[in-house]
Amino acid sequence: MAATKENPIIFYDIHSKDGSWSPNTYKTRLTLNYKRLPYKVEYVSMADIETKLKELGVPPTTHNPLFKYILPMIADPSSDPNGKPTYVVDSFEIALYLDKTYPAPKYPIVIPPGTRALQKIALERVMNAGMGFVTVVLPLAAARTNFLDDKAYEYYRQSRRAIFGRDLLEFLPEVDSNWEKARGGWEALGDQLELGGEDGPFVMGAQISFIDFVLGGLLHGVQKCEGGEMKYWKDMSTWQGGMWGEFWEKIAKLEADSSEVSV
Amino acid sequence: MAATKENPIIFYDIHSKDGSWSPNTYKTRLTLNYKRLPYKVEYVSMADIETKLKELGVPPTTHNPLFKYILPMIADPSSDPNGKPTYVVDSFEIALYLDKTYPAPKYPIVIPPGTRALQKIALERVMNAGMGFVTVVLPLAAARTNFLDDKAYEYYRQSRRAIFGRDLLEFLPEVDSNWEKARGGWEALGDQLELGGEDGPFVMGAQISFIDFVLGGLLHGVQKCEGGEMKYWKDMSTWQGGMWGEFWEKIAKLEADSSEVSV
Repeated sequence: MAATKENPIIFYDIHSKDGSWSPNTYKTRLTLNYKRLPYKVEYVSMADIETKLKELGVPPTTHNPLFKYILPMIADPSSDPNGKPTYVVDSFEIALYLDKTYPAPKYPIVIPPGTRALQKIALERVMNAGMGFVTVVLPLAAARTNFLDDKAYEYYRQSRRAIFGRDLLEFLPEVDSNWEKARGGWEALGDQLELGGEDGPFVMGAQISFIDFVLGGLLHGVQKCEGGEMKYWKDMSTWQGGMWGEFWEKIAKLEADSSEVSV
Repeated sequence: MAATKENPIIFYDIHSKDGSWSPNTYKTRLTLNYKRLPYKVEYVSMADIETKLKELGVPPTTHNPLFKYILPMIADPSSDPNGKPTYVVDSFEIALYLDKTYPAPKYPIVIPPGTRALQKIALERVMNAGMGFVTVVLPLAAARTNFLDDKAYEYYRQSRRAIFGRDLLEFLPEVDSNWEKARGGWEALGDQLELGGEDGPFVMGAQISFIDFVLGGLLHGVQKCEGGEMKYWKDMSTWQGGMWGEFWEKIAKLEADSSEVSV
């Protein structure tokens, strides 16, 4: 049974008081919007992801002991009215699942035929370049007041201390210099992507695809982690002749053109 | 004027006494074969690449002071009988040029529409994984007797000493351990590529494309640098359930099905 407005896909996103903020879950939001699939969002506190997934009987997705349970996840309704939905975790796996379950031409394709491995490699490339922003935007998110609920905030600080060996707030004096370092890596990526060239605004030219959602998720994450005046994002949107600002406009349009339903 | 059997494309390859051996020029050989374009090979000694390109009035291609002039290069005949041919350097640029100048459907496409940036990123990914083999196969090539002409051999040893800070032959005691290290990185790439899966034997599934020529060039380079019994290549061809051996068979077939002309 395909998802309907009355019985939509459940999309598990990560909560902040300012709405969705994870670069990873955002890819799935765009995937659902682009495919015009009806969905309902269930926000989970970052501190409760493991508990939630265990409760639903979903096995761990990664071998990383720090993050065995991750979001995004979707629950696609079962064809059996009393049956369990199909749970799919990880934005790339979700895209593959949805392209298979809700295929073209009825539903637009997110990973065009033949490009699966290429998209996966490009995903890794983009996420690596995006790692340059981590020591800027995560400290900025930690410094945002009234952004996460108290439990999530505590979890966020502690779990990132386990990764970086020091508190996120200790990075704040370095964020400007880290930002400049990240810029170089990001612009090298931008050169490869040739966005907005004669072939069209997206990585595959005129055709939007999953890799654009990966880029969109990173730009969205920069904005949400920083919040407020968004001086870093405003800077970034001018890089490479305003290429990122123009790209973002197209992504923001897809975010706004949502297939989310209110049940 | 399109190239003809009588007036073919000139393909500048790098000489060895055992024929073509460069992973980079091999990509262009496969590109020409796949597009069924008539070509004639001109072999250049590694020591003479710079001299040759300067003589033809071709500007340097890279900013790397050690390798400003590189091969492969093609000379596409001019439409003016007295005119200069069009010189194009670098296998990716050559593929783009040939796809544009000799377009589908008459000539098979090497970089399918919309995949240019994805192919470029994947090219970088594959070449990075291939770098793991450098400290194995370059020393093996240096140890091959009667492989390069004397001038090229001298140039090869000296130019690589400038890169590695020591003579290639000094790497020989480490090649077995370096080979095992390279294997891990290559198999991680193999996992991403999903070659030979249900979609087909190539990176894009059923459709062969430039990225397969990149992989083919590396496998060919391993074989040619080692030569003789090829025990390393025989080992590699068994990795991941024999995936690389099977992939190589398909590449070797395209190499053998050559559009090279004897004028």
